[in-house]
This record gives sequence, structure tokens and C-alpha cells, in this order.
Amino acid sequence: MTEDIGHGDITGGCIPADQVSDWFIEAQDDGILSGAGIIEHLLGPYASDPETSSIEIRKNDGDKIRRGDVIAEGKHLTRRILMSERTILNFVMHMSGVATLTNQFVIRVEGTEAKIIDTRKTIPCIRSLQKYAVRCGGGYNHRMGLYDAALLKDNHIAASGSIRKAVAELKKYVSHMTKIEVECESLDQVEEAINAGADVVLLDNMDPFMMREAVQKFKDDVLFEASGGIGLDTVRGVALTGVHLISIGALTHSAPALPFHLEFE
Amino acid sequence: MTEDIGHGDITGGCIPADQVSDWFIEAQDDGILSGAGIIEHLLGPYASDPETSSIEIRKNDGDKIRRGDVIAEGKHLTRRILMSERTILNFVMHMSGVATLTNQFVIRVEGTEAKIIDTRKTIPCIRSLQKYAVRCGGGYNHRMGLYDAALLKDNHIAASGSIRKAVAELKKYVSHMTKIEVECESLDQVEEAINAGADVVLLDNMDPFMMREAVQKFKDDVLFEASGGIGLDTVRGVALTGVHLISIGALTHSAPALPFHLEFE
Amino acid sequence: MTEDIGHGDITGGCIPADQVSDWFIEAQDDGILSGAGIIEHLLGPYASDPETSSIEIRKNDGDKIRRGDVIAEGKHLTRRILMSERTILNFVMHMSGVATLTNQFVIRVEGTEAKIIDTRKTIPCIRSLQKYAVRCGGGYNHRMGLYDAALLKDNHIAASGSIRKAVAELKKYVSHMTKIEVECESLDQVEEAINAGADVVLLDNMDPFMMREAVQKFKDDVLFEASGGIGLDTVRGVALTGVHLISIGALTHSAPALPFHLEFE
Amino acid sequence: MTEDIGHGDITGGCIPADQVSDWFIEAQDDGILSGAGIIEHLLGPYASDPETSSIEIRKNDGDKIRRGDVIAEGKHLTRRILMSERTILNFVMHMSGVATLTNQFVIRVEGTEAKIIDTRKTIPCIRSLQKYAVRCGGGYNHRMGLYDAALLKDNHIAASGSIRKAVAELKKYVSHMTKIEVECESLDQVEEAINAGADVVLLDNMDPFMMREAVQKFKDDVLFEASGGIGLDTVRGVALTGVHLISIGALTHSAPALPFHLEFE
Amino acid sequence: MTEDIGHGDITGGCIPADQVSDWFIEAQDDGILSGAGIIEHLLGPYASDPETSSIEIRKNDGDKIRRGDVIAEGKHLTRRILMSERTILNFVMHMSGVATLTNQFVIRVEGTEAKIIDTRKTIPCIRSLQKYAVRCGGGYNHRMGLYDAALLKDNHIAASGSIRKAVAELKKYVSHMTKIEVECESLDQVEEAINAGADVVLLDNMDPFMMREAVQKFKDDVLFEASGGIGLDTVRGVALTGVHLISIGALTHSAPALPFHLEFE
Amino acid sequence: MTEDIGHGDITGGCIPADQVSDWFIEAQDDGILSGAGIIEHLLGPYASDPETSSIEIRKNDGDKIRRGDVIAEGKHLTRRILMSERTILNFVMHMSGVATLTNQFVIRVEGTEAKIIDTRKTIPCIRSLQKYAVRCGGGYNHRMGLYDAALLKDNHIAASGSIRKAVAELKKYVSHMTKIEVECESLDQVEEAINAGADVVLLDNMDPFMMREAVQKFKDDVLFEASGGIGLDTVRGVALTGVHLISIGALTHSAPALPFHLEFE
Repeated sequence: MTEDIGHGDITGGCIPADQVSDWFIEAQDDGILSGAGIIEHLLGPYASDPETSSIEIRKNDGDKIRRGDVIAEGKHLTRRILMSERTILNFVMHMSGVATLTNQFVIRVEGTEAKIIDTRKTIPCIRSLQKYAVRCGGGYNHRMGLYDAALLKDNHIAASGSIRKAVAELKKYVSHMTKIEVECESLDQVEEAINAGADVVLLDNMDPFMMREAVQKFKDDVLFEASGGIGLDTVRGVALTGVHLISIGALTHSAPALPFHLEFE
Repeated sequence: MTEDIGHGDITGGCIPADQVSDWFIEAQDDGILSGAGIIEHLLGPYASDPETSSIEIRKNDGDKIRRGDVIAEGKHLTRRILMSERTILNFVMHMSGVATLTNQFVIRVEGTEAKIIDTRKTIPCIRSLQKYAVRCGGGYNHRMGLYDAALLKDNHIAASGSIRKAVAELKKYVSHMTKIEVECESLDQVEEAINAGADVVLLDNMDPFMMREAVQKFKDDVLFEASGGIGLDTVRGVALTGVHLISIGALTHSAPALPFHLEFE
Repeated sequence: MTEDIGHGDITGGCIPADQVSDWFIEAQDDGILSGAGIIEHLLGPYASDPETSSIEIRKNDGDKIRRGDVIAEGKHLTRRILMSERTILNFVMHMSGVATLTNQFVIRVEGTEAKIIDTRKTIPCIRSLQKYAVRCGGGYNHRMGLYDAALLKDNHIAASGSIRKAVAELKKYVSHMTKIEVECESLDQVEEAINAGADVVLLDNMDPFMMREAVQKFKDDVLFEASGGIGLDTVRGVALTGVHLISIGALTHSAPALPFHLEFE
Repeated sequence: MTEDIGHGDITGGCIPADQVSDWFIEAQDDGILSGAGIIEHLLGPYASDPETSSIEIRKNDGDKIRRGDVIAEGKHLTRRILMSERTILNFVMHMSGVATLTNQFVIRVEGTEAKIIDTRKTIPCIRSLQKYAVRCGGGYNHRMGLYDAALLKDNHIAASGSIRKAVAELKKYVSHMTKIEVECESLDQVEEAINAGADVVLLDNMDPFMMREAVQKFKDDVLFEASGGIGLDTVRGVALTGVHLISIGALTHSAPALPFHLEFE
Repeated sequence: MTEDIGHGDITGGCIPADQVSDWFIEAQDDGILSGAGIIEHLLGPYASDPETSSIEIRKNDGDKIRRGDVIAEGKHLTRRILMSERTILNFVMHMSGVATLTNQFVIRVEGTEAKIIDTRKTIPCIRSLQKYAVRCGGGYNHRMGLYDAALLKDNHIAASGSIRKAVAELKKYVSHMTKIEVECESLDQVEEAINAGADVVLLDNMDPFMMREAVQKFKDDVLFEASGGIGLDTVRGVALTGVHLISIGALTHSAPALPFHLEFE
Repeated sequence: MTEDIGHGDITGGCIPADQVSDWFIEAQDDGILSGAGIIEHLLGPYASDPETSSIEIRKNDGDKIRRGDVIAEGKHLTRRILMSERTILNFVMHMSGVATLTNQFVIRVEGTEAKIIDTRKTIPCIRSLQKYAVRCGGGYNHRMGLYDAALLKDNHIAASGSIRKAVAELKKYVSHMTKIEVECESLDQVEEAINAGADVVLLDNMDPFMMREAVQKFKDDVLFEASGGIGLDTVRGVALTGVHLISIGALTHSAPALPFHLEFE
């Protein structure tokens, strides 16, 4: 909240220091909730005295919510709530925006084997909250960062010489707990990656026919992830190729906020 | 970059430690650039040895860019560039997304007196970068936070009793350098705010006819800001009422990323 | 408190770990209190068990206190109070010193329109506490830093070419919530500043006759601030010129401490 | 500098980004310099390009300076120097104020054996800079905090039961490198402290006759420190009693700033 | 280095501020080097002026070194080197101690398929340096922490009900890049883990005969890790059972330091 | 705990969020306990609700413990305890290892005047915990770092010219609360150090006969510390020379962990 409050809230001082208000937070559109814990986290420390404060969270993360739903309500010093309002709403609006967009993709692939997953294309500084919001929306996470899984992309393969060489080099030092994924652009590359010992194959910007061929040929050997400019209109077609995973950068770099407001009773 | 790199880049180790690559960053869509300084900031410390490193920034923040434009290029240790790539792109994509959306609003109000401004509805932790990006797009900033200007909103006025009381209370202690803005929902409130000594009046969710009336009546006394669900299709109508400022939350809470990628030569 | 305690309090160990003492803090001179909240802040976390701890703050910030007044008393583990004593007193003595000096200026301008304000000439690292202490003493704050208001000083004007140019340049990008103050050394400059659109004019090191002339001529257009080596003996003369604000660097860079001590009962 | 600059310098933007200015810092009063290193520290990182920047420090910490002396000069981007000016001056003015006050005490005890020392009565957050400034002024440091030496004060002795018990308890666990000082208010206490094994005796608020008696009797056994409301007018009398050390809280809690300003050439 | 230097190096002041010394760091025992990069990291920033400073690292991490080998030498301000000496040696001695102990295990399993790996039984705060040192010694890393791989231990299985249930629950939400390891104490558990879809099986405190049986039966389905009180005298026997991995807590919780000293020439 | 938990505990999610477990921590070997406070520190904040949580510490730091002793027990959410287990054990195992090794030395010098002390040869980042553990084991601390006492070592003396010069230089500026120790390698040096005013003399790598001679000759004038490769087998011989202090680097750089485990009931 430092970012918003800085050296203090100038305006809040116009309100008596001991005035108490009942407040509630209301959804202004339909979607999936994410970030309810933030409310507890930011206001909880100021809710120790039951005379002047209380918090009740009425919806859970992952819940489908409708415009007009009250997701939380409480009672606090008026100055405190005016100081916290914007920070709380900024978190809940962004996180619920991510969860809602994710869920729209998830619904479109229902009935297929494909899982919707996120990427490292996140907004700086809040990746772990965004990845949590993806899970609230019914999606799954790819790796959190460069440190918790290995993914050989086109630039690595070019720099290393070949898929075979890159995988062999990696295997010399990675932990036995680390999976290796390889980005492929052709069936030959897929075969090379599998022979080299890849655990997962990323089919990047491949047309659905080639994807289906890759999946049918090697489904028993490896997991397949599809990626590259997949939108709400095309995601089902990709899912029907049989890939196990579909990654969507937009979930975390372009989700519009889901609107909420905080009102006094 | 900690968020992305954590305890280290597992995959990068497959590339020889002293291999050097020439790289460039290319726009994948049209828009306004913001965040070029991040490239210098993140890679600059690794560009001290001209044998193995260099950076050239070829476009400036605020520049109109076209798909295919190279915005920066350089030479670095391959491992270093693979480690920094995603962090750089995440900043530039998000900030340019904000600048581009801002600019679309700015273009629509050209020829009127209205300036496009941002709000405190930002994505947590990166507000000052977002506000910078708004300026790159031709917009202006509202206050940075609760600490650098006073804005009496509906909740303050309700809690305080009346606009008159709230402003009077504020004037007792604010610095002579602090401006006071008051949110109003009717012409009566506008008049009360001006009489109380407001410097700026926020016309919240008002219809254009009422806005025009307020502006015509009181334009010499205060600045007028319009806000409330104003979109690309409605912004020009609002601007034509004569308001000085139009604030748009979506600039900083719902701007889609502008895509860029980094490639090796 | 890190600064004082470092890796631990060597001496405190000579006292039994469970010994409890009743303590009180007493003023050793007359003045204005500031910093009582620090006592609560530093000892409060150790006052959860009513058997062994309690805190009662008996005077409020801004109160006029006399030598011998007890401002707070309580009961804590003896080791804890000996560990916190110096840090608490250092805050309260310095902040009350600032409040007391401010109040001496405030008293001298009583009956005039002038407010006593502070400057950015503060002691590094504790500016916001000092500015709070100025308010406790009956003064007002100028801007908190370079970030929350614009003040064009002689060096800016020299570097920019003229007052007119400097103000025009500023107006191109500042927020509509930012006030602009201009430092002037002559009546011509005052007029130039007002024509350029300054909100506040700083009369720097001007003699009282010229100040009065400036005020009489332009009082309706701007606020006037006087500054420059104004002491307790000269402040009333300056106030009588009709200026709205008198800024005193000494409030925050040269206030002597107001003495307090902590004793056991 | 964060405290002063916050989210950015609003005013500085009125000056062209590439304008360069020659600056110098001048003393506005006589005194002892302390803090010259701060100038290098804050501006040094911006002085890498000899075309647009340079710094020359012309006086050293500890030097006697006269009104009008230039202590440093240089060349930097104008925006940079305007951004750093106040922070630099705030450090140099406060630290030189401490050094100058210290030196006034030091001069008064010249020819005696007494050293002027500081206390833990410092302004919060800048103790180590203040203690450095005391050394610049010709004084010496007492302990830095609770962690680097043991000093049994009246509250410890009261809590512990007796000087003998308190010292004995301490000796059970302190390092062989830790000295023990004991605050005494009577000759009997001095004798008890020395018998208990104190390394240093603090004569607190004792009259000069009693001090002299204590010193004459026990000078070979122990170092003597005098403290308690000693001012510029009384310090020489105390020094002539033969004490080794005189501690003055005012050096670090009540030193007025020594004025400096920064000008453009 | 803060931990060692605190508010400054008292002793170093006895040496002239501009004195320069040639130094070298020498091994005082045989072993494997780890931590040479720390020397560069801590002294490098002070080696910009070739007149007064230089650093040459003469051995690389992972090198076998003998008593008397010089691993680095250089030239610096004497005060600087005396200030950095202990911190550098503490890192190099501890890290080389870990690398040396690891290497003793690695040598004992030469010719088998088993890799020596570390655990999460590390010394608090320096885990990533210890895990790096294990790699210098020829070992491999298990997961870095709770966040980068899943390991179901006895407590998880007890709490969850059964291996089958625990693995099934995990599979509902883990990323497709996460491997799952299961701790087993009997052949039945091994079979249950493999059927549930474990990627790795941990044979905890099992006798070598049972280990061999597990390995022979299921070697094609999973990786086997042995753990539990394995010492230098028993490790080869374990390796000969055919397990792929042997984890040794002592590498990171009980490695004695490898001695080095820094001398002046 | 950040180091271990990072972005979250992957495995813990397999356990129901509201499941509660009774746990206890048991010693797996004999030794001296150190670090019990860590358990309270890390789990205490999660023990506010008596329905689902409790902690009872059953042994105190410094206690002699035997294999099988339960040192603490409690009840917490199962996920919480699995998340904290390794961090707690890593602290307790290392700190108790240090206390246990220290105690072995302390026992060997019983009946002599010698105290066992530690050095600055510590494991980076946890020095103050290690020094605390030494005290739990019955040892004493040497200085905490370069900042709280002066120790002139061979390198200082070489750089300074002579013991006499080095001590004289030091005495010019150190606080009257700082003791000075001088490292000596011959009886002549011991005499020079004492004449120069050393408070403590460090006999470095001296044979016991020479130590005894130094002690007998100068025992009344200074404290003597012995150091240099002293082990459990040789420490009593050194103690019998009459030195006051024996410093052992191994206490903090080479103590093996004392094993503990955490089990569910």
C-alpha cells in the first residue's frame, strides 16, 4: 500500500479520527472471483477490536460471481477504510480479471483433454498473484520462472547448435527432479526432441493438422503443449488435436480488470 | 528480475558460458513505445566490455512504432540475454500497451480542450511505471497517490456530512501547495463545492448535458474533470462539453499488452 | 532501534530476565509535546500480558507541557524498558524540540494572517517526523519533497532563462493538481510570476517594505510566502507586512532538543 | 535521497534534459567542515562522463572553514544537480553543525587532560554520521550503542540491587574485550565500583569539588568521565578537576546547522 | 560483509589510508575449491584503479587443490584487504569444505551408476551457495526447496491416508513440469508409488538387499534414490545396489571447513 | 524460511487445508540444546487459536539432552507444520551442533582458569546465532566483528611497522571503551605489546612452554588468549599453561550438526 499512501492520506483527515463506517464490496460485472484473501490481509490487522471493526468474506476465490454480488463486508474506522479501499480494489479487480479471462478459455475446451496453462508473459512484480488467479479461473500453471523447470526455446537451440546437443548438455547437470521441455516447429524436431529425452514438447505456432499428426504419433512418449497466438475463437480447434496443454500469454498480459466498488451502508 | 530468475536459470546452462549473440527487439504490432529505458537499465550493467557487449536503443519512448520496427539491438553473452529477455519484454509490452491505449483516447479528443488523464486504478506495484507510460501516450497524470493531492469523493462527503464541512475541515490543515478536488453528482453540489473553495470539480457519471451546463456556468472558477465509464466511443462527446480533463481508469487497469519479441541475428 | 541495539544489549543482561519495573517519562523543561505515539509504537508490542506490562499515555501531541509533567507511564520487563529507553527519548526529545521552537514562532505572529511553515531543510532520514512535529507546534507544512509540488527557485529560473519560460515549460506536463510557486527577488519578478500563472510567490530575502508593497498590489491574485533568515526577533515584523506564509528553515535544521528522562518508580 | 525525491522531481522538468551547469558549494558561516564525502557519494555516480560532469572537493572533513569558502565545485546535468542539492546540503549543514559545536567545547578544554566525548543522545537514524562529525570536530566517541560496551546506569543499579551485584552479574557473561563503566553519584559509590572491577567511572551531575576528590583518590585505578548538563561556560571548570572524559549530549541532540548554499556559476 | 564490519573496522585505522599491500590466499590443506567467485565479487568493486589494485584468480571452482597452492592474489589498499579478509575466507573455507566432503563421496561411488546428491538439510541462509559447492565437488542437487519439486515423505503419506491418495491429490493441481517423488519403506510401498504415477522413488533407511530387489524389479519404471545415514564407509555398498541417486544430508549440514589464509607478500 | 518455501510448498497441497496434526521434535543423539527459541519464533505466529494450535517447549537452550528426548511438541495445521519442519530443524541441528562441540571443549578445561571462546571464523550470515550457541555450550564470545573491539594481528603489525607504532596510532582515536588486543609470536613481542598498553595479548601458535613463560611473567598486566590449531586432544595442555582464554575457530566453522527429527503422533 506504500505506493498509494506514501507519506500519508491528505484527504482522509477531513473525517473524525474515531468515526466508524459499515462498508461492503460489490461486483459490478459477472466473472470469477480472485483475491478475496487480500481483503483479509490488508484490513485484518485493523480488526482486532470487535466494537469498531469486523470483516466477513462472503465469496471464495474461484467462485462464479454476478453483478451486484457482495463479496465482502465489514466495519472499520472510516479513515482506515478510505485509506485501504483503492489498494484492495486494485488487487481484486486485476486478479479477478485474470481469473475471468482464464475461465472463458477453460469453458471453451471442456470435454477435451486439454488444460489451459499460463506463461512467463506476466506483468512485472505480481507474477505469483497472477499465477494464483489463473488457478482460480480453472487453469494450470506452467513454470514460475527460469528456476523451476527447463524449457529449450528456439533461441537456445540456435545458440546450442541442435536439439540433441542442447538436451545432452542440460542432462549433464540438471537435478533428477527437473523436467525438460523442448520447443519444436516441425515433426522432425519433435522426433529429435523425444529421442533426446524431452519430457514435454512445445508445438509453437504449428497448424492444427501438423499438431494432430505429432500428437497421434508420439502421444505415449511425451506431453504436448500448444502455443502461439491462440484466442478464444481458435482454442477449441487446438484442443481437439489432442494436445495435453494449451498456453495462453494473454491470460496474464492482457486480461481486462473485472470491476468492483466499495460502498458505505 | 528476481521474480523470474529466482535461484538461477536452469536452461541457460546448456549454452557455452562465453558464447556471444547479436540480438534485436522487434515490434509485432503498431502502437506507441514506452519502456525503452528498461532495456538500458537491465542490460547496461553488462555492457562494459565492447568486445562482447553493446546496446543501441533505436526508438524513443513516445515514438509511434510500426509492426516490424526494431526498437533496440545489441550484443551480449548469450546466457545473459536469455536470462533478461522475458523481463525486458514484459516491461516493454505492458508499458507500451498502456501508452498505446492512452494515445487512442488522446487522438479522439484532438481539437478540444480536454486532456486525457489517468486514475489511481492501477495494477499493484507498478503504478509509477504505468503513469509514466500514460505520459508517453500523450496523456497527463492525476495525483500519484493519496499523499500528493486531496480528492473528496462520495464516501468522504457522506462520512463528513456535507461538501462544505469536508472542505472546511481539510482547509484547516493542508499545505498551501495542496489543491482540493471535489466529486459532484449534481449542479447544486458543483455550486456548493465552488463556494467552499474547491480548486477542481469532478463530474462523476454525469450525462453530457448536465456536464455542459456545469462547465458553461462555472468555467472561470474551477477546472472540470469528467469520469465514469468513458470509452473510446463516448470520449469525444464528453470532450465536446468543454471539460478540461477526462479521466479513464482503463488506461492503467485494462490495457492489453503491445507485443514485441527478441530475436538473435 | 537497530541503530542502538545492534547485536544486543550487553548491559541489560545483569538484570533478572523476568524482573518487572514501573516506569514513567517526565519532562525536564517547558514546551510542546510531540512524539507520544512513538512510545506506544515501540513498547506496545511488548504490552500484551497485563500481568507484566501496561502503557498509559498521559499527554497528547500538541499539548503544552511543563517541567515535571509525566507524559507517559507503564510497566514492563525491566530489560525491555532499558533497551527501549534511549530510542524513545531520542525521538520524543527531538520531535518536541521541533514542536517547541515552531510554537515560539507561532505565538509571535498571533493576531496576524501569517502562518508559520517549514521547508525542505530537514535533518536527513526523519523528514516526515519533523514535519509532523511542526504541525504539533501549530505550524503548517510546505511540500514534503520534490515530488508533491513545484517550486521554481533562482537556480531553476537562471537555468531556464526566465520566469515566464520556466512556468510555461512546467505547465506543459504537470498534473492539474500541482500548484506552482515561484521565488522572486523584486517586484518586477513578482509581476512576471503572476502573469505567467504562478499560484504562490516566494519573496526571498526581501526587505519588509518591498514585501508590503508586493502584498498590497497582488494579494488577490496569489499567496505570498516570505523566507530568508527570519528569526524570533524579526518574524512579527514580517508577518505584519501581510504575507500569508512565513517559512523558517531553523524549525527543522536547528531546533534544540526538549529534555525528558525515564525513571523507575 | 528517496525521502526528498519520492516519485520524481516535478520542478526539474522545466529545464532541458541535456543542459549542464557549473556549480559550487559555499559556506555561509565559520565553523568546522564535516560531510564532504557525502557530496562525492551522492554525485559521484553521475560523474563518469568528463564532458558533462566533474567534482572537485576543495576542503576536507575536519578543516576550519570561513564564511565564503568554497568547499566543493563541479559540473553536472542541471536537472541532476537540482535534484541532489537539498539532500547534499542537509547532510553537510547538519554534520558541520555537530562538528562545529564539538570544536567549541574542544577549544575550551585545551591544555587539560580532558577529552570531549559524545553520548547515545543522538537524532534517530543518523547516529553513525553524527558520531563521525564529533570526531571531525576534535571530539571522541563513547560507545556506538547498547551492543559495543557496558554502562551500568542508575536504573540498572536500582534494578540489580547494588553496584557490586550488577558488576558481578555482568562479569559472568561479557566478553573479555568488553569494558564496564559504572555511573556513580557519591564517593562511596565510586569506591564500590572500583572494588567491583569497573574499568571506567561516570561521575553524574556531581559538583566539581567532589569530582576533584574522586579523581585525586582513584586516578590510577580507573578512567573518570564527567556528565550532566555541562555547557560551554562550565566545561573548563569540569576539565580542571582532572577527569579524563567529559560527555556532552548537546553535541548530537542540539547542534544548530552550519549554513551552506549551492550556487551556479 | 555487514555482519562483520557493522559500523566500521576499528583496528584498520592504525594503517595509513593510502597504504597498498600485495596479498595472496593460500590453501592450508588438500581438497576441492569452491567460492573463488566470492573473492572477485567482494574485492572487484575496489579494483578499478590499476595503480593501487588488481585481482588475479589462479584456481577455478571445482579444481583439486593442494596445501600451499595459491588460489588468488592481488593488490589493494591495505585497509580494504584487512576489512574483507575474514568475510572472503569464511565463504571460501565453508564452500570448499562442502565441495571437498562431496568429492570424497563421489570418488567412492566411481564406476557405479549412482550420483551423489544433496538434501534440504542445509545451514540456514546459505543454501544456494552450499548447493553450488556440492556441484563443484562433483555432486548433483536435489530440489532447491519446497517450491521446485514435489516429494511426498512419511508425514505427508500419514496425513493424507495413503500413497495412492496423496499422489492422486497432488496430480490434480501440480504443473505438468513438476516431478513427483515418493518416500517408501517397503517393496509394497514402492509398487504402490509406481502404480500411482511417481516419477522417482526414495528408498529411506532400507537395507541394501531390499534396495537391490526394488531396483531390479522396477528399474525401468522410475528413478531410485537411497537415503538415511549413509556414510563414507557404507556409500559404495549402497551404490552397488544399482540405485540412481544417493542423498547425503551431511554434505551440507556437517562438512568441516577447508582451511585457507590470506597473507601479505 | 523464504529460502525453503520460495513461491510456495508444492507438496503440502495434497493434505486437506484444515487438517490438524500433533507433532513433536525428538533428539536423535546426545548433546547440548541450542535454538529452542526458533521453534517458538517460527510457529508462534500460527498458534493463536487454541482449537487448532499449541506449542510447548520442553527443554531449554543450554540443557544437556539425550537421544530420544522430546524437546518440543505442539499441534498445528498439518500444512503449516510440514512447511516449517525443515527450517526449524536446520536451525536447531546446526545451533545444537555448535553448542555440543563447544561443550566438549569446555568439559576438557574444567578445573583450570581458561575460558573457551569463539572467533570470527564463522559461517556467513548466521554469526550471531552461532555466537549465541557457543554461549549455550558454556563458552564465551570474542568480539562480534571488526566494529566492537580492536585486535592487531600479524598483518596489521607488518603494515604498520611495529607493535608500538600500531598501538600508538590506535590510541589516538579509539573510544575509551575499546579494548586493544595484540597478536604476538615471541616473548619480546609480548613485552612490547604490554609496554605499548595492550589490554589483551594473543599468543598465536606458540608452544606450551613459551606460553607458560609469558603467562608467569606478565599475568598481572594483561589477559592472555591462546589460539592456533588447538583440538580436543590438546586443549587441556594449553589450559594448564595458565592462559585466561583459548579461542577455537572450529566451534563455528566445523561443528557437525546434532540430529533431530519432527514426527507426528
